[in-house]
Amino acid sequence: MEEFKVTPWEVSGRVDYDKLIRQFGTTKIDGALRERMVRLCGGDEPHHMLKRDFFFSHRDLNLVLDDYEKGKGFFLYTGRGPSKAMHIGHLVPLIFTKWLQDVFKTNLYIEVTDDEKFLNKREYEWAEIQKNADDNILDIAAVGFDPERTFIFKDSVYVRNVYPLLMKTARKITGSTAKAVFGFDDSTNIGMQFYPAYQVIPTFFEKKRCLIPCAIDQDPFWRIQRDVAETLGYYKTSAIHSRFLPPLQGITGKMSSSGGQETAILLNDDEKMVKNKISKYAFSGGQATVEEHRKLGGNPDVDVPYQWLNILFEPDDSKLKKIHDDYRSGKLLTGELKAILIECINAFLKEHREKRKKAEKLVERYTRNGKLATEMWERTYE
Amino acid sequence: MEEFKVTPWEVSGRVDYDKLIRQFGTTKIDGALRERMVRLCGGDEPHHMLKRDFFFSHRDLNLVLDDYEKGKGFFLYTGRGPSKAMHIGHLVPLIFTKWLQDVFKTNLYIEVTDDEKFLNKREYEWAEIQKNADDNILDIAAVGFDPERTFIFKDSVYVRNVYPLLMKTARKITGSTAKAVFGFDDSTNIGMQFYPAYQVIPTFFEKKRCLIPCAIDQDPFWRIQRDVAETLGYYKTSAIHSRFLPPLQGITGKMSSSGGQETAILLNDDEKMVKNKISKYAFSGGQATVEEHRKLGGNPDVDVPYQWLNILFEPDDSKLKKIHDDYRSGKLLTGELKAILIECINAFLKEHREKRKKAEKLVERYTRNGKLATEMWERTYE
Repeated sequence: MEEFKVTPWEVSGRVDYDKLIRQFGTTKIDGALRERMVRLCGGDEPHHMLKRDFFFSHRDLNLVLDDYEKGKGFFLYTGRGPSKAMHIGHLVPLIFTKWLQDVFKTNLYIEVTDDEKFLNKREYEWAEIQKNADDNILDIAAVGFDPERTFIFKDSVYVRNVYPLLMKTARKITGSTAKAVFGFDDSTNIGMQFYPAYQVIPTFFEKKRCLIPCAIDQDPFWRIQRDVAETLGYYKTSAIHSRFLPPLQGITGKMSSSGGQETAILLNDDEKMVKNKISKYAFSGGQATVEEHRKLGGNPDVDVPYQWLNILFEPDDSKLKKIHDDYRSGKLLTGELKAILIECINAFLKEHREKRKKAEKLVERYTRNGKLATEMWERTYE
Repeated sequence: MEEFKVTPWEVSGRVDYDKLIRQFGTTKIDGALRERMVRLCGGDEPHHMLKRDFFFSHRDLNLVLDDYEKGKGFFLYTGRGPSKAMHIGHLVPLIFTKWLQDVFKTNLYIEVTDDEKFLNKREYEWAEIQKNADDNILDIAAVGFDPERTFIFKDSVYVRNVYPLLMKTARKITGSTAKAVFGFDDSTNIGMQFYPAYQVIPTFFEKKRCLIPCAIDQDPFWRIQRDVAETLGYYKTSAIHSRFLPPLQGITGKMSSSGGQETAILLNDDEKMVKNKISKYAFSGGQATVEEHRKLGGNPDVDVPYQWLNILFEPDDSKLKKIHDDYRSGKLLTGELKAILIECINAFLKEHREKRKKAEKLVERYTRNGKLATEMWERTYE
């Protein structure tokens, strides 16, 4: 078995997701739970990320659905560590979160962790992080959340409103817990040692259950939250975990914007750049020659272009199945598969950029004066 | 040699101040430096706490005075960990700070560390800390600082304005440094591990030298500050350190409000309570019987009533000298010395309470809308 490592700051190796579920103590999303979600969507088609088991693991999702059915409701929370340029992988949890918000009509809190990014990366200046954060907020807004039910905030800006609760949370977490859960050691700076308390805070924003759609590497924060929540008078948080969007060069680790251009498609890559990156770097499950490929067929399980279509770019099941089968049989060549992906990505990015442009007008509502944002600025958490 | 221990959270044993200066790496205030201070006071009498060597140690006080003489100036910073009821020992650094502000006409920042007190005392509720903090601010205001040049703030309230600088500072301090300097271990909560960064922040409020009047147990924070200040573009802070006001029951440790009524005189003790505490608990350097006392005389060096007069309640040198000599010779009895102290304390507390009452009107100026406070609320520290 290949070695792999999953922490909030590092994902490497070929991840064995079943093993990870056991390690982290989460629960697999089984057929019954998935069907329950589908039923609750009403007539709507469930999101393909759920249907296709890309969101594969959870904590207490059943309890969230119980509360929803009882009319008590729940709320959503997800986050973003601001980076210079967002890549398509960053949009994955946001897109799924939007779907959940649309279906369940819930409030949503999006924490932009400018503090954590600064604390964790010594090479960054504060001003640069702020520029990136404000830029990222536009990309987040482009996803199209409900502007009256969504509050997007930077940690540094909202801190006054949550500081008492932050202290209460921090007082419950010892240094040894933080070390054990996050792999900190004594060379870790005291800001980072403290930071996990802040990532926990939004789970307390309402006296309802919180559901966090996120990649599974963030789960250690939720374990901490679940240790302290009830003694603070709140619910243990729920989470719904995704797998990782594989990087261009192969299905190990996760996409990262610091990994160089052979790793990620950035949201501001132009059409030529996309074509070039996919053609040149996308790891293929195809055979070495056309002849061999026609004879033996390709392997979609390790083929990055196929996986990206599966996870993000081809929501139509029958179209995806045809691509899968044709590739497996050798009918569809690697170059043809890549061409399909290039077209999908470029269409996706074009639309994203248009939505981003339109979203400029909405940022104030998400961050300051939408219905939920207005309420949040009037509130202090003690 | 008796064992003693001095940390920001514990002072015990009979403190050997010369040894402490060597341990902490501070500098004794020698005759030349004291004379320089006196000279700079103009015609004014220097404060008896300085003359009598109660403020006995410093860091870079000479550089502060250089800057003052050059017209560059400096600023003052001191703090207060809010407690249920302040005792007379808490006023000591504040009274001396007021004198410095009056003489040098400087800005003064007073940090009320509600966060630290909460993090460090698991038995406290947040709301209780806030009540205590607001109450303590009245006692601080009663000392009579310049309302246009003094900014009093609670950490929890001003945090938004300093958060970026707090992150910059925290990023410079490793867990092992905090452990070594403060004696934290892995059972310390992550809030406390982080807190030292905040106590450092006010030293960066102006691009001038900061002078901190405080008891010497706070010096570990300034060591940390001096390690990081220059890499952040600020001055290493200066400090002027006092000894500890001894508790009622003897000249070891320091006065503490959690030590029970045999330890401290609280600012809201009434006349009867003061009389009772001093009569009953004040450790005496006198002899066991009047006859022996007349014959052998008392020892003012270990006599708490005499020490309190020396440090706080008898600014008149000639009066103090007479008390000292009469007690030493046996002319002044223990009961008589205690009676002098009781009268002094009650006069002091009466005046303090009157000033506190009048100060109610000034709190807004110190915390919100005085000249300096207004400037501070408009500022963000990055």
